[in-house]
Amino acid sequence: MPGNTIGKAFRVTTWGESHGPAIGCVVDGCPPGLPLVEDDIQPDLERRRPGKTRHTTQRRETDAVRILSGVFEGVTTGTPIQLLIENVDQRPRDYSRIKDVYRPSHADYTYHHKYGLRDYRGGGRSSARETTMRVGAGAIAKKYLRERAGIVVRGHLAQLGPIRPATFDWDEVERNPFFCPDAEAAEEMARFMDALRKSGDSIGARIDVVASGVPPGLGEPVFDRLDADLAHALMSINAVKGVEIGAGFRVVEMRGTENRDEITPEGFVSNNAGGVLGGISSGQDIRAGIALKPTSSLRLPGRSIDTAGNPIEVVTHGRHDPCVGIRATPIAEAMVAIVLMDHYLRHRGQNAEVESAAPVVPRSAE
Amino acid sequence: MPGNTIGKAFRVTTWGESHGPAIGCVVDGCPPGLPLVEDDIQPDLERRRPGKTRHTTQRRETDAVRILSGVFEGVTTGTPIQLLIENVDQRPRDYSRIKDVYRPSHADYTYHHKYGLRDYRGGGRSSARETTMRVGAGAIAKKYLRERAGIVVRGHLAQLGPIRPATFDWDEVERNPFFCPDAEAAEEMARFMDALRKSGDSIGARIDVVASGVPPGLGEPVFDRLDADLAHALMSINAVKGVEIGAGFRVVEMRGTENRDEITPEGFVSNNAGGVLGGISSGQDIRAGIALKPTSSLRLPGRSIDTAGNPIEVVTHGRHDPCVGIRATPIAEAMVAIVLMDHYLRHRGQNAEVESAAPVVPRSAE
Amino acid sequence: MPGNTIGKAFRVTTWGESHGPAIGCVVDGCPPGLPLVEDDIQPDLERRRPGKTRHTTQRRETDAVRILSGVFEGVTTGTPIQLLIENVDQRPRDYSRIKDVYRPSHADYTYHHKYGLRDYRGGGRSSARETTMRVGAGAIAKKYLRERAGIVVRGHLAQLGPIRPATFDWDEVERNPFFCPDAEAAEEMARFMDALRKSGDSIGARIDVVASGVPPGLGEPVFDRLDADLAHALMSINAVKGVEIGAGFRVVEMRGTENRDEITPEGFVSNNAGGVLGGISSGQDIRAGIALKPTSSLRLPGRSIDTAGNPIEVVTHGRHDPCVGIRATPIAEAMVAIVLMDHYLRHRGQNAEVESAAPVVPRSAE
Amino acid sequence: MPGNTIGKAFRVTTWGESHGPAIGCVVDGCPPGLPLVEDDIQPDLERRRPGKTRHTTQRRETDAVRILSGVFEGVTTGTPIQLLIENVDQRPRDYSRIKDVYRPSHADYTYHHKYGLRDYRGGGRSSARETTMRVGAGAIAKKYLRERAGIVVRGHLAQLGPIRPATFDWDEVERNPFFCPDAEAAEEMARFMDALRKSGDSIGARIDVVASGVPPGLGEPVFDRLDADLAHALMSINAVKGVEIGAGFRVVEMRGTENRDEITPEGFVSNNAGGVLGGISSGQDIRAGIALKPTSSLRLPGRSIDTAGNPIEVVTHGRHDPCVGIRATPIAEAMVAIVLMDHYLRHRGQNAEVESAAPVVPRSAE
Repeated sequence: MPGNTIGKAFRVTTWGESHGPAIGCVVDGCPPGLPLVEDDIQPDLERRRPGKTRHTTQRRETDAVRILSGVFEGVTTGTPIQLLIENVDQRPRDYSRIKDVYRPSHADYTYHHKYGLRDYRGGGRSSARETTMRVGAGAIAKKYLRERAGIVVRGHLAQLGPIRPATFDWDEVERNPFFCPDAEAAEEMARFMDALRKSGDSIGARIDVVASGVPPGLGEPVFDRLDADLAHALMSINAVKGVEIGAGFRVVEMRGTENRDEITPEGFVSNNAGGVLGGISSGQDIRAGIALKPTSSLRLPGRSIDTAGNPIEVVTHGRHDPCVGIRATPIAEAMVAIVLMDHYLRHRGQNAEVESAAPVVPRSAE
Repeated sequence: MPGNTIGKAFRVTTWGESHGPAIGCVVDGCPPGLPLVEDDIQPDLERRRPGKTRHTTQRRETDAVRILSGVFEGVTTGTPIQLLIENVDQRPRDYSRIKDVYRPSHADYTYHHKYGLRDYRGGGRSSARETTMRVGAGAIAKKYLRERAGIVVRGHLAQLGPIRPATFDWDEVERNPFFCPDAEAAEEMARFMDALRKSGDSIGARIDVVASGVPPGLGEPVFDRLDADLAHALMSINAVKGVEIGAGFRVVEMRGTENRDEITPEGFVSNNAGGVLGGISSGQDIRAGIALKPTSSLRLPGRSIDTAGNPIEVVTHGRHDPCVGIRATPIAEAMVAIVLMDHYLRHRGQNAEVESAAPVVPRSAE
Repeated sequence: MPGNTIGKAFRVTTWGESHGPAIGCVVDGCPPGLPLVEDDIQPDLERRRPGKTRHTTQRRETDAVRILSGVFEGVTTGTPIQLLIENVDQRPRDYSRIKDVYRPSHADYTYHHKYGLRDYRGGGRSSARETTMRVGAGAIAKKYLRERAGIVVRGHLAQLGPIRPATFDWDEVERNPFFCPDAEAAEEMARFMDALRKSGDSIGARIDVVASGVPPGLGEPVFDRLDADLAHALMSINAVKGVEIGAGFRVVEMRGTENRDEITPEGFVSNNAGGVLGGISSGQDIRAGIALKPTSSLRLPGRSIDTAGNPIEVVTHGRHDPCVGIRATPIAEAMVAIVLMDHYLRHRGQNAEVESAAPVVPRSAE
Repeated sequence: MPGNTIGKAFRVTTWGESHGPAIGCVVDGCPPGLPLVEDDIQPDLERRRPGKTRHTTQRRETDAVRILSGVFEGVTTGTPIQLLIENVDQRPRDYSRIKDVYRPSHADYTYHHKYGLRDYRGGGRSSARETTMRVGAGAIAKKYLRERAGIVVRGHLAQLGPIRPATFDWDEVERNPFFCPDAEAAEEMARFMDALRKSGDSIGARIDVVASGVPPGLGEPVFDRLDADLAHALMSINAVKGVEIGAGFRVVEMRGTENRDEITPEGFVSNNAGGVLGGISSGQDIRAGIALKPTSSLRLPGRSIDTAGNPIEVVTHGRHDPCVGIRATPIAEAMVAIVLMDHYLRHRGQNAEVESAAPVVPRSAE
């Protein structure tokens, strides 16, 4: 059973390998009447694009997206939207070096077991290039959410190795190559990355995503909880090893009196819940955090085996991100937006006629 | 669109409220020919059952499960298995106190917004009682995995508030009421809980689950990654606010040379990946951890509002777990087992004919 | 992959065998706030119930349905509704006769190949008893459609062997045991059935279902066309071998000028389309017809083989419907209602904000 | 909720409009290791392609398919296969004539109600061009079924207006432009079509599909019956108004003694069931028939209304098939192949370990 689709009401199916002729995705279920052109999508692709600064891989992806269907006279028609990006940087390369090798911490070994073969050019479906299409689909979701539902989804780098932002400014996030909300911390990160690149090693990172303006009521109480679907979507991003909602792992040591978010007519007193109560949005900001592992494609040699089972030494050449987290903020935003979009449509499918008498607690300043 | 079902090939749908006549679930897709009787399921229900020690709620749930379909002459037939448990402890109670109240950190407020009404008796679908049926369905998955695939799924308490086990013994896990692998830490936990109960407060916890014997090849490379589906399943448990796979959030500060799990013919050198590479099982132990928040049903008063928007003070009476994590180990095991079962069937659906030439790296001692 | 669920937004999962302790279904996705009690469901179950007249099986099914979840204080809550009916007529019987026999035209042979075993008591999941729960779930859909959307779903017998109604009166349909819209034809059918019963043989039938008041816009243009989903749902009923929408197989010999339903401001001139254009409802009556085969459980001996492959002679004893079509009208209505309900919710999920300027062509007198 | 995907284990999602830049589909779930090149797909596209004879539309579609993903070194990898065909015959045309018109028997009216707008160029998603991608995906399914499972799926025209084949020869089917198994009848059809074209009218047709070599055991007993899924898939083809399995509507007048397919060790005595018993394949030929309505795009004027509700006269200019059934045989084969492929994978997902002791009844000569 295939697993290249996410969402039930807003469904995104990605396809393509980094070294094939093109990659793309089908976005099925978008409501009709949304103005949509390539320029609505391209900016988020640019945010994710490698090669913009010295801190990310120097591989060049032009990433010019085309809308091939589902849009007529500049608005969505309600039928499947196909996005396609041609792969232009397909250098004829010699892959014989990695063809028979299992790179440590890559999917090479597991693919070979699962499928009996693998597309060894650039990681096949496990290439970070696949996430380009998530960003593309997410841009559509973000636009709809923003324009039709007043929901804004934004992310930022929350930690790079040992360095955390000390101050917080949303405007700063787009001004530095790290999506870091603190200009000073961003400079420190730049120095850290320069040293790291020289060493040949890589580093992990943490990204936080915040969705504001989410109305209370999105989500489900049991399996398809909003937080559970967010966890699924975020953990499905390459290199992610942990997901938190609200206070996350800090709740382990918290007491109930400290953790419970008391409610007043003026607003929730705190947001340890991260905007989700019983799997359903509360109207407070939705807050999710993810941990991204350091890439294992290093020029520092590591032990592994080849496809015959012999021990070998692996050294990665070529263009790799020393911190995959740097470019992952737009991807994390996209996954959050796709989940919210899906639940927005699902909710009104079942509950469009509900007129709730429940009072709306204002969103708290946070 | 409803969200009370989990899994694609092994599908579990739960139904029922804690204060209705019964709760149950349909398990659809179980392979035929598996010997199955109530006694295969009851022991895991007993492990989860409240009221066994002074550290959990004194509410009594007899939880005698009945198999109503899908089993004939003691073996599964391949058709839907219905499990049902009657609710026997339905005391005629006065709910007028909470009827018009939104308890902080509960789903009361969000239910009212979503559905326009709510079953205020005991939390409706958000009651921890719903998890009983997950444990029931999980027991079937665990039995199949163990007997047919050699996969063993086990969990344990990894932290209770500030207390962590210092030693590790799987046998000890079943000997104390905390599922704690360290007898001494368990005693410390007992003292901690006694004090906590007196104070009227509650505490968070962490649970780890380990699946051993998982063959390489289960999972998918993109959205339905094995780790993403685990994150979804685990985050869908009541009170869970964080999920980690392998090294989890520790990867944020790790370097690539430290994090990559090198491979030798004798085995993987480490298991920071938690048994999943590129979304597909590697044959190493699958390791997942979850954070459970402290319950907010406290006898210590807290601020909230009523359904008219007026400020009120909430005090919870009655029988509640001061640490919901204590009884959650069997639930976490069940969710992991359901996901593995699902992917086991999905994998052979697509890849039954694959004969991989890939060498099998032995599972490392950990 | 299991197939005991139908619908995407309004999901019905049935479980249970005719000779187990109970049968039931989960109805997931019903909007909240719909008044619902057992008495809303029971009448349709009575319409389907065997043993009411001499023309159907004398097997007694009391079919007293219980709502076990999803309803609180008399209205649906939006959470899963569990319906359950206990099997009271489980006579301890000797099944040794059919245990090792493949009855012709039954699922015995195919079950044995698929699952390696079968529940030989009464046909297991292939028993007509399974359809009881479809009628139960359909009653909920019918009530919602009628009360909230103004949609009425009704069916009638359109042919019994060689006999067709000559006149049409909806009121007559509920007055005779055949659901026949023509009182005289019903009497002829009674005579026909009396002779048939004596002969020991059985006969086929045709049922038509009409849904009135369906707003234009339900359905999808490609795979999940409204007519395609109706075909799926209707063909999934036991013994159905053909499905028609509108003019059905008559279109094979029709010319375009004859078949195209011209439109005038006063209404469509004809309804050969059966209320569906391009997979989407047109606002005209939706018309579907099905063919039901004669039962093959006959006391007239037939050739077959046993599980060892030896030739045998099969004679069916016991209580069987000589025309399964007689009781199938409520089942066909239920399946149509479930599909319409599903698409009603799906449509507003995607298109709730659409304000179409399209004129509404009045429903034509037909 | 979107409906542009069919299948659960073998999933096909189509996208694209006839007058956009391209059309395509994603085939997800194909097992790895299947040799696949464009030339495996192109022949079936040629069989469906218009403009080959004077009896079909003279619109030219070159239909050169490209495989953009999921195939590496000539074999499938198990990841999504993207097929794409560029639309080369996009004449800049004046659509102002039909922009504000609802063509009778087309989806114009229902689209406008559903989505509030429509892509009026060539029917949008309701264009017959969409079926090109079904044929493409079906070609992959047919190849797998034939090479890995010994299943052959073939179709033929069974009736064109009043003309039916009198003799049957599979070889003849590919020799005439009608897919007619009788050369003489094909000539009669040619004469009939010549006269019809002159008259400006159109005609309906019937197509039958036969799948041979299907092992017993594919399908499900309840909703996802093999015949129900076939009915869904076939009714989802443009212009189809009826679906039959086996004896189809003839069962209405049949007696049980006549209809039941008796079994002998030498084979089934008849195949009124059309190869499906209780929703599961019996090993006999699977036989399905469909009725296709005559196109309503005629140059003979017809009554309709415009988008303002005013009465108008519609005359269709341009290139249309006077009998859409002529080119539909490859489409019907494709839909049957997709369903069989899906159930082949689903079956082994659940039942791969079943070793049935059931004897195999040989396929009867038919």
